[in-house]
Amino acid sequence: MKKVVLAFSGGLDTSYCAIYLAQDLGLEVHTAIVDTGGFSAEELQEIERRAYAMGVKQHTHLDETENFYNSCIRYLVFGNVLKNNTYPLSVSAERITQAIAIAKHTKEVGADYVAHGSTGAGNDQVRFDMVFQAIIPEVEILTPIRDKKLSREQEIAYLKEHGVEMDFQKAQYSINKGIWGTSVGGKETLTSHLPLPEEAYPTQLSKQQPERVTLHFEKGELVGLNGQTYEHPVQAIQHLQELAAPFAIGRDIHVGDTIIGIKGRVGFEAAAPMVIIKAHHTLEKHVLTKWQLYWKDQLSAWYGNWLHEGQLLDPTMRDIEAFLENTQQNVTGKVHVLLAPYRFQIEGIESAHDLMSDKFGSYGEMNRAWTSDDVKGFAKIFGNQTKMYHSINNPESAWAAE
Amino acid sequence: MKKVVLAFSGGLDTSYCAIYLAQDLGLEVHTAIVDTGGFSAEELQEIERRAYAMGVKQHTHLDETENFYNSCIRYLVFGNVLKNNTYPLSVSAERITQAIAIAKHTKEVGADYVAHGSTGAGNDQVRFDMVFQAIIPEVEILTPIRDKKLSREQEIAYLKEHGVEMDFQKAQYSINKGIWGTSVGGKETLTSHLPLPEEAYPTQLSKQQPERVTLHFEKGELVGLNGQTYEHPVQAIQHLQELAAPFAIGRDIHVGDTIIGIKGRVGFEAAAPMVIIKAHHTLEKHVLTKWQLYWKDQLSAWYGNWLHEGQLLDPTMRDIEAFLENTQQNVTGKVHVLLAPYRFQIEGIESAHDLMSDKFGSYGEMNRAWTSDDVKGFAKIFGNQTKMYHSINNPESAWAAE
Amino acid sequence: MKKVVLAFSGGLDTSYCAIYLAQDLGLEVHTAIVDTGGFSAEELQEIERRAYAMGVKQHTHLDETENFYNSCIRYLVFGNVLKNNTYPLSVSAERITQAIAIAKHTKEVGADYVAHGSTGAGNDQVRFDMVFQAIIPEVEILTPIRDKKLSREQEIAYLKEHGVEMDFQKAQYSINKGIWGTSVGGKETLTSHLPLPEEAYPTQLSKQQPERVTLHFEKGELVGLNGQTYEHPVQAIQHLQELAAPFAIGRDIHVGDTIIGIKGRVGFEAAAPMVIIKAHHTLEKHVLTKWQLYWKDQLSAWYGNWLHEGQLLDPTMRDIEAFLENTQQNVTGKVHVLLAPYRFQIEGIESAHDLMSDKFGSYGEMNRAWTSDDVKGFAKIFGNQTKMYHSINNPESAWAAE
Amino acid sequence: MKKVVLAFSGGLDTSYCAIYLAQDLGLEVHTAIVDTGGFSAEELQEIERRAYAMGVKQHTHLDETENFYNSCIRYLVFGNVLKNNTYPLSVSAERITQAIAIAKHTKEVGADYVAHGSTGAGNDQVRFDMVFQAIIPEVEILTPIRDKKLSREQEIAYLKEHGVEMDFQKAQYSINKGIWGTSVGGKETLTSHLPLPEEAYPTQLSKQQPERVTLHFEKGELVGLNGQTYEHPVQAIQHLQELAAPFAIGRDIHVGDTIIGIKGRVGFEAAAPMVIIKAHHTLEKHVLTKWQLYWKDQLSAWYGNWLHEGQLLDPTMRDIEAFLENTQQNVTGKVHVLLAPYRFQIEGIESAHDLMSDKFGSYGEMNRAWTSDDVKGFAKIFGNQTKMYHSINNPESAWAAE
Repeated sequence: MKKVVLAFSGGLDTSYCAIYLAQDLGLEVHTAIVDTGGFSAEELQEIERRAYAMGVKQHTHLDETENFYNSCIRYLVFGNVLKNNTYPLSVSAERITQAIAIAKHTKEVGADYVAHGSTGAGNDQVRFDMVFQAIIPEVEILTPIRDKKLSREQEIAYLKEHGVEMDFQKAQYSINKGIWGTSVGGKETLTSHLPLPEEAYPTQLSKQQPERVTLHFEKGELVGLNGQTYEHPVQAIQHLQELAAPFAIGRDIHVGDTIIGIKGRVGFEAAAPMVIIKAHHTLEKHVLTKWQLYWKDQLSAWYGNWLHEGQLLDPTMRDIEAFLENTQQNVTGKVHVLLAPYRFQIEGIESAHDLMSDKFGSYGEMNRAWTSDDVKGFAKIFGNQTKMYHSINNPESAWAAE
Repeated sequence: MKKVVLAFSGGLDTSYCAIYLAQDLGLEVHTAIVDTGGFSAEELQEIERRAYAMGVKQHTHLDETENFYNSCIRYLVFGNVLKNNTYPLSVSAERITQAIAIAKHTKEVGADYVAHGSTGAGNDQVRFDMVFQAIIPEVEILTPIRDKKLSREQEIAYLKEHGVEMDFQKAQYSINKGIWGTSVGGKETLTSHLPLPEEAYPTQLSKQQPERVTLHFEKGELVGLNGQTYEHPVQAIQHLQELAAPFAIGRDIHVGDTIIGIKGRVGFEAAAPMVIIKAHHTLEKHVLTKWQLYWKDQLSAWYGNWLHEGQLLDPTMRDIEAFLENTQQNVTGKVHVLLAPYRFQIEGIESAHDLMSDKFGSYGEMNRAWTSDDVKGFAKIFGNQTKMYHSINNPESAWAAE
Repeated sequence: MKKVVLAFSGGLDTSYCAIYLAQDLGLEVHTAIVDTGGFSAEELQEIERRAYAMGVKQHTHLDETENFYNSCIRYLVFGNVLKNNTYPLSVSAERITQAIAIAKHTKEVGADYVAHGSTGAGNDQVRFDMVFQAIIPEVEILTPIRDKKLSREQEIAYLKEHGVEMDFQKAQYSINKGIWGTSVGGKETLTSHLPLPEEAYPTQLSKQQPERVTLHFEKGELVGLNGQTYEHPVQAIQHLQELAAPFAIGRDIHVGDTIIGIKGRVGFEAAAPMVIIKAHHTLEKHVLTKWQLYWKDQLSAWYGNWLHEGQLLDPTMRDIEAFLENTQQNVTGKVHVLLAPYRFQIEGIESAHDLMSDKFGSYGEMNRAWTSDDVKGFAKIFGNQTKMYHSINNPESAWAAE
Repeated sequence: MKKVVLAFSGGLDTSYCAIYLAQDLGLEVHTAIVDTGGFSAEELQEIERRAYAMGVKQHTHLDETENFYNSCIRYLVFGNVLKNNTYPLSVSAERITQAIAIAKHTKEVGADYVAHGSTGAGNDQVRFDMVFQAIIPEVEILTPIRDKKLSREQEIAYLKEHGVEMDFQKAQYSINKGIWGTSVGGKETLTSHLPLPEEAYPTQLSKQQPERVTLHFEKGELVGLNGQTYEHPVQAIQHLQELAAPFAIGRDIHVGDTIIGIKGRVGFEAAAPMVIIKAHHTLEKHVLTKWQLYWKDQLSAWYGNWLHEGQLLDPTMRDIEAFLENTQQNVTGKVHVLLAPYRFQIEGIESAHDLMSDKFGSYGEMNRAWTSDDVKGFAKIFGNQTKMYHSINNPESAWAAE
């Protein structure tokens, strides 16, 4: 009997796949759920229960949260990556990590097929397909949902027919929760003009009184909070999320380019990711040089886009990661943040590597390391080429006279 | 008698210069104030009164607000320019416009010298010097404050000695107000860790109840608000500022690289600029293609930095402006914004050029313009090179197995 | 009877298509050949004769050479575009122009189908498909060669069977000739290690004695040669080709990334294009500022790649063209070139916009526009941040001591 | 007695400095010559003799050739760095290495001053100044030639007066020779339109018969030639130079932007550097992915410019080096090159990492890893956004109809 590994979430689509692969295609179904920090222990147990209830041969829980951080989130923080300056790539990054874990698991299981439940209109299908092709090119990919284009009602009918009992009621908003943010889709996000209503967001405002929190970074990574350090940055992120989420911070709606060329709009809440990125960026503005900041932005924008498009396995990404990692050696220090309802504010930083040192003079105040004549000379030479350009090309008329 | 044109603000430094240039250097002093939207009529009158009271030959008020918009702000909006993703370049942009206006005025007056009151530790000295060199290379630049390095007390003593009466008390926070934002400096901004206190900001929170406002853009420019159109975008900006400023929106502290290499920290409030930039950017995310968005960001970041460094006259800037202008032809539509205390939120957009059209299918929902097989083919070819790369270079081990 | 427009070159593949579309699919066949400067009048007549001999309803000759220049080559010169710093995009650029011309012709003819003879392993299929989709989305695309995967022998058998008489002998090297260069493929280009033999190149060395030629540029365009001006740059290019080609100049082998992800290797000869690009670039180095040169390179590299991938219709390309065009306003002057067997050398330029003017001092010789102290001050400030960085981060050890 | 370290070349300017620093300023002079591969043993001995003859306290020969390679040339090869696509940065790179060596030596000697003989019109003064500031900020910099602006005749008179005997005749062309190329300046390079005459180049054509050479690269570094490997890439470069230089290969004239804003024109000959860079680049085109090639170019262009401007100590440079180094892990293989009089040609490569593998199909020939339908689907999705853009924005008229 041929084996298939199915990326399984316990939802309607992947439940349909589990039954269909076994019953209609006659395959031995191995379900696997990749945990990247978005499930509670209870949810994972319930998914496992459901998988076995549907008769799968084996169900596996792959705990990839730390791996997700190490291979992905880490660089998103180093690069302060926000797609189109808005979205922390919550789902995009997670999906690639999941695809890689499923591919490796498929190899270990020695399966003949690998299956995912993506539809034909989203990004995830491309991410799964491309990662599977690169890592397990010899394994055939099955995508029943994409291929059969079934309606929700048809899927439910099929499952009922095959004796599957589950809550078939559709949630008003579709939620994808992970350690790097939660996406929210609903009828408003299918329009361009409507915002999501307050109640669409899973985390509601529950703290009114502003609080301060100090983030500790070491070589660009969040290692502690308010003086407490953690074994792994994943724990620091999770703890910060507990502190910040009740302020309903880090919400926004993003519209962006999907891999398949259409625009997609999605709401999200990402309290910890947004606080971390803004805090990290502020610390960098103090400790990095002008051109380090410049090039980080240029490379990170492309890195984020390419990751979003499922291309994490392109070796260019490793090269950019080497660049980003190298930039972080002095990104060590504390960042003070004020958390308030629906917003937060970076208040200041402390770092031994702070280039805003008064050893050399303060901006606009007193210059200790150079003279007025030095700056005059600087301005003369710094403006030399532009001056010559205008002298040669606009000898009579001042530039602005036009 | 030789003539000097003095860039004059009516403050301590330029008052010192006015007296010094006349009395000590024996020059015929022509003061000029360049208005870029930051002064009230009363303030301008008072400055004029003060100039003549100090005995200047002639005082001129140069109204450059619309010119500031046309030659500068316009492109900052097109490019969504925020220095280091934070600061709308409020002062940087304004100063260059002022320097150009002073240079042209100096030419018209036929002056032998041009003077500015900058100190030796800031950005402005370089901006003034470079613009003067390029536009009026034949005119000598005088900078008494920079050259003499006087203390505040010495300047006051000198002015008193020369019979100048003015309020010599130093404000606790130094403010630079313009149409594109107000900068705030004080003892906290000389540190890295302290935020500015609430009272440091000139505009205090005075509206508690959230309001909605609709911004109308035409080819990238703000032309109207809530259905009303204006003769010039300057008026739309000013009106939006009236609506948004009472929410204490658009405040932040920026630390950045000065032209002279040190880091400088500055607070700012810029309600209208921040709302306009975020609204404009959201509209662009709907109407521009992926690579238009990408390249706009890359070029704008550099454009903003180079403008900040006083290099507006480099012809590269004209080339980038041609690029930016060309990108705006479809950036036409409405943007709905919610204003609330200390924050605002883009709620949605409406545009005839919106690429998120349901003519072609909705993201994650239904695909009308392509088939499942099309996407499968796409994913295969799109991942082709990475697949080959790993097949050749990592034939045995999966990428992520490392 | 339904109509099809067929992009027709008179070769084996498109001859097969002409018969197949008429005989097997029962369509009214309208052949069209797009001339982008690669055909002689005799060749065009022979192709027309052949088309009618095969019984097509109508054959059209679309003369697109000037249009090719105006919409494409012009910007390749402005950007000094050489893919991977090697290949002048001879075929890539031409193919897009041809696809656009065919699409417009299809619309005019009011055809129901449009057909091209591309195989399934090259770039051209993607270029034709994408341009047709964008311009004539309502017209179905037919690609018999790609779909049926026939061998050369099968095509010949089919044509003989249908009474077509032509020279079926395969040339040893496949040639694609156009105004912007000629590509050469053969058994060597299917390997990575073999060069093309001398005889593979259509233009053989026939001039031994070096010659000088002067190129006249006006706003970046080649308008004259050796004092003679032309009505259109196309004529200047053609005349330069006559002068330079006998030196066997501008040959190379390029290996690059195809649109479909594999590497492709191709020989080419492009005497005029290479001389023009190098001459234009040298002129630019004299008349443009440092950052104009920098940004032109960055944008042009991407522009060339995206054009190569068939994406000329992306509006980002118009934006970059606006940038490039704006950079050219001073790129006016003469460039002196030495042509010699297998090589050429740029000898010098003359331009009224030359920034290497001795008005300001000569490099390494005498400085007239600044003092030694100015440069000292410049160096101090220009190195300020790096000095501070090392002072703070490496206080004890010199950088290079590591 | 206070000590000064003088960067000494034995030429007129630095001889003047040696005497002046001792006699007029009363300093204990320690001369140092930094060898970066441009001097023969005899030349070094002669320079040492001359130094002691002028009475310096101590003369030191700092052999920095391998260090020059390790810290600089290596990355210029990784990045295929040619300034403005022309000049291998022969002098620029060398000068920085020399400045760093002098700075370290100054520290070891415990000198109070450091001196260089640069004039006030070139790049070198800025490079020396900035490196000294960053590494030995506590040491004062002396620059007698720049400060005193002496004519050649005045310097000669001064030296004669102080009993210095040397050949005071000026060479017609000023030469700077190093392992990464030799620069040539003369009366022609002070113009824009004249080429250097044949005899200006130190290496004359002496081989007529073309030769083939195979370069062996390992992780991007030249490790061998024609099957022979070397202990250090420096030796491979030197040996390649011996083979290639007699063909008078790698000559050109570059005009570029100096650090001080003026344009500078310089001839050069750099046989081995040009062959290595072109060979390395060709190998990369076979083994790197499309975006690795793209980003290498973008970063390298900036890296080369910033190095040229003396900013090697900016930590951004280390970050880019980390990127470049990471890209090289598969740049291993052989490159076959044909050397001929005044030109060379890359003939082909062999590499185990070649992505042009026929495992997957050959360009334009046969596709083994995907179907025609895959490419059709790819083209449909790849062109999706552009198609939608034109459908929404140009519904009636085809793009090209304009």
